[in-house]
Amino acid sequence: MFSKVLVANRGEIAVRIIRSLRELGIKSVAIYSTADRESLHVQLADEAVCVGTARPQDSYLNVKNILEAAVGTGAQAIHPGFGFLSENAEFASMCEECGITFIGPQPATIDLMGNKEHAREQMKKSGVPVIPGSDGYITSPDEAIDVAEKIGYPVLLKAAAGGGGKGIRRIEDSMQMKQAFAEAQSEAKVSFNDDRMYLEKIMENVKHIEVQVFRDNFNHAVYFPERDCSIQRNKQKVIEESPCQLITQKQRQYLGEIALQAVNAIDYHNTGTIEFLMDEHHQFYFMEMNTRIQVEHTVTEMVTGIDLVKAQVLVAAGKPLPFTQEDIQVRGHAIECRINAEDPQHNFMPMTGTVNYLYLPVGNLGMRIDTALYPGSKVSPYYDSMIAKVIAIGNDRTEAIEKIKRLLNEMVIIGVTTNQNFHLAILNDAEFLQGTATTTFLEQQFLPRWKGEVSA
Amino acid sequence: MFSKVLVANRGEIAVRIIRSLRELGIKSVAIYSTADRESLHVQLADEAVCVGTARPQDSYLNVKNILEAAVGTGAQAIHPGFGFLSENAEFASMCEECGITFIGPQPATIDLMGNKEHAREQMKKSGVPVIPGSDGYITSPDEAIDVAEKIGYPVLLKAAAGGGGKGIRRIEDSMQMKQAFAEAQSEAKVSFNDDRMYLEKIMENVKHIEVQVFRDNFNHAVYFPERDCSIQRNKQKVIEESPCQLITQKQRQYLGEIALQAVNAIDYHNTGTIEFLMDEHHQFYFMEMNTRIQVEHTVTEMVTGIDLVKAQVLVAAGKPLPFTQEDIQVRGHAIECRINAEDPQHNFMPMTGTVNYLYLPVGNLGMRIDTALYPGSKVSPYYDSMIAKVIAIGNDRTEAIEKIKRLLNEMVIIGVTTNQNFHLAILNDAEFLQGTATTTFLEQQFLPRWKGEVSA
Repeated sequence: MFSKVLVANRGEIAVRIIRSLRELGIKSVAIYSTADRESLHVQLADEAVCVGTARPQDSYLNVKNILEAAVGTGAQAIHPGFGFLSENAEFASMCEECGITFIGPQPATIDLMGNKEHAREQMKKSGVPVIPGSDGYITSPDEAIDVAEKIGYPVLLKAAAGGGGKGIRRIEDSMQMKQAFAEAQSEAKVSFNDDRMYLEKIMENVKHIEVQVFRDNFNHAVYFPERDCSIQRNKQKVIEESPCQLITQKQRQYLGEIALQAVNAIDYHNTGTIEFLMDEHHQFYFMEMNTRIQVEHTVTEMVTGIDLVKAQVLVAAGKPLPFTQEDIQVRGHAIECRINAEDPQHNFMPMTGTVNYLYLPVGNLGMRIDTALYPGSKVSPYYDSMIAKVIAIGNDRTEAIEKIKRLLNEMVIIGVTTNQNFHLAILNDAEFLQGTATTTFLEQQFLPRWKGEVSA
Repeated sequence: MFSKVLVANRGEIAVRIIRSLRELGIKSVAIYSTADRESLHVQLADEAVCVGTARPQDSYLNVKNILEAAVGTGAQAIHPGFGFLSENAEFASMCEECGITFIGPQPATIDLMGNKEHAREQMKKSGVPVIPGSDGYITSPDEAIDVAEKIGYPVLLKAAAGGGGKGIRRIEDSMQMKQAFAEAQSEAKVSFNDDRMYLEKIMENVKHIEVQVFRDNFNHAVYFPERDCSIQRNKQKVIEESPCQLITQKQRQYLGEIALQAVNAIDYHNTGTIEFLMDEHHQFYFMEMNTRIQVEHTVTEMVTGIDLVKAQVLVAAGKPLPFTQEDIQVRGHAIECRINAEDPQHNFMPMTGTVNYLYLPVGNLGMRIDTALYPGSKVSPYYDSMIAKVIAIGNDRTEAIEKIKRLLNEMVIIGVTTNQNFHLAILNDAEFLQGTATTTFLEQQFLPRWKGEVSA
């Protein structure tokens, strides 16, 4: 087992990892930027090394300084958390070259899943349903209409080499396809000197459903109950839950099994999450795979009682998975709200400041707050605006929501504007309470209503 | 279901009950003394009524004012918490007379279990083993020797009417019995004008093991996994755990079944706890029954995932138990440390003050802190010195201890001296870590060692 691990991150996830390391009896090394000198992760770690100035490129993405810190402190492994270097295959390779264990999958796996097209091809090969589209490229409007009729409109007509919105058209019917194809193709030719086109079904009215998997180096793999992360703004998750109340035990098992099929096929190591879209007919379509721990792993921990970061460390150290599929039971319903330093009333503008007063309501059963905040701590403009995750578990979804509402009502953060009340408004929304919200709910249904109420 | 409940308590237990009421959608009424105007339970409740001045007799024990507050606010029930009026049969009766539900067992049950001799007789009747002793009274030294030899020395020779240590002798052998009997008897005669004597075995090297039970008004009863509360000072519990690692599943079931036998025999309603002593041979002896929620119910909640206060409210409202025996599973190992405002280095003198700075480390899986503290809150001299309960659950005892140690290491309370570091010293003690400590461990083994270290 490792005796010392460097945590290549900051904020709540660094704090969360350091705490699990301590419980495992492993010494922790924090890294920090000059802006983070007084941050909680620096105070809690056994050692801390400054790796650069405030800008992420200079510190938390500064591969050279981070590897030097690891070697210099004698850390045997690096936990990358999420964001920053967590899905950087080159960094994972460099760790290996330095004789340091990267706590995550193999570099080649990170690489494979990082390329969205390769990932999609790989998933198709393992029998995982992907978002319907053309197999390969399309050269004529008639071929495009054939494919579109097979997968169903609306579709996205995309330039293979596309980017920046160029050569992309939303197509509603064959008439439109006839009109748009040549135009889009020539736009692609002009923009990228590559007129290869392909089609992808536009998935509407879908839920974001994801399945976390864990696989050790001895071919043991398990899946966790799904998470419903449909409450999103700007493609960022805002509220996450587990399990999804619309999914039956049979569907859960099906989802888990295709997820395991996928990771077994690529000899995946450690934990990762396969993200799916689920349509009205409960059909699932592969979207992408995250080859790291995610923000919302906490709801899975609450609902299963399993510490996923500890398991990451154990598996990276070459130990077998410390649990079996049978150990993974759904023990109620968990929900998480991401507390961001932002002003929902002013277009969610990121906010900064010093926490002058902090009250975290931590009593009673089934509450959890993961945060690096403390009275006097600073929220700086350099990093992600997510400053706390509040999580509650109840016997069912209704109880979990009642619990987290209570928590949000009691919590006091003075000195930094947050989206705490915005969360409360969502949690009180009748449509949200039905549990059927899709990925467009927040922006298309909720936000217009809420803006109306707030301005009234 | 009740729409409004009065909480006849203060401090962390009042806060804890108010929180569960809120999650149930029930309005809460706090009561408070003039010393508690700014207390958290007053701030969190939907309504609050001042019931008197600081002295408990004038406020939290002021039956008349409390009942007036309940009637005046339209509360349909009173939750007494623990301490104060929680085991006062007369108060429970008066609630009934005012048409207010007392959340607890029937007044007659409280009365029966409150009288230690009646409770013992009742338990014997239901087949629950009690601490061995004489059946009825003893009139001669020879009879005393006969009984003592049957139950085994050492024994306690006690005046039936005893009190204040008068007429009580610890007896080690028959020689001593011959010498002491007449003397103790005449002391009893002089002191109480009643020379009836009886014998009780002195239980040494025993653990304090208790079993919480829950019974609704429809004859459904369940038991919870036992708690080990052997770490005590001055007969006060200091650290509690669940389950007891020395007890097998078979013994757990046996204990649970005799506990159910006992409560079924007296048509017990709501929750209560039967306290046993367990000797080296894992024989259990009834000590007493608490007819209320206990401080340490929290470890049971953590280890089973069941909110016991919510269940108390539901059952008191005439609902069936919301769980079955099968739902009650042991999901790891939970441990609680009682944080007292006291100075362990000065003979545990109670301390008071204002909380100038507070950091409660609430992140990661399986942590809980039940407290009425907030930054700026005051600890006054009028009430119990217990100001917080920190609780952790792990997969096993070792992990639970690692977790709670981490929590205690991170927690910061400035402004009031507490026993936080004393707890850490216990948690690091090799003998404690074995899990075999008996009720004398803290005072006889640990404290002398610790005093030596502290003064060194």
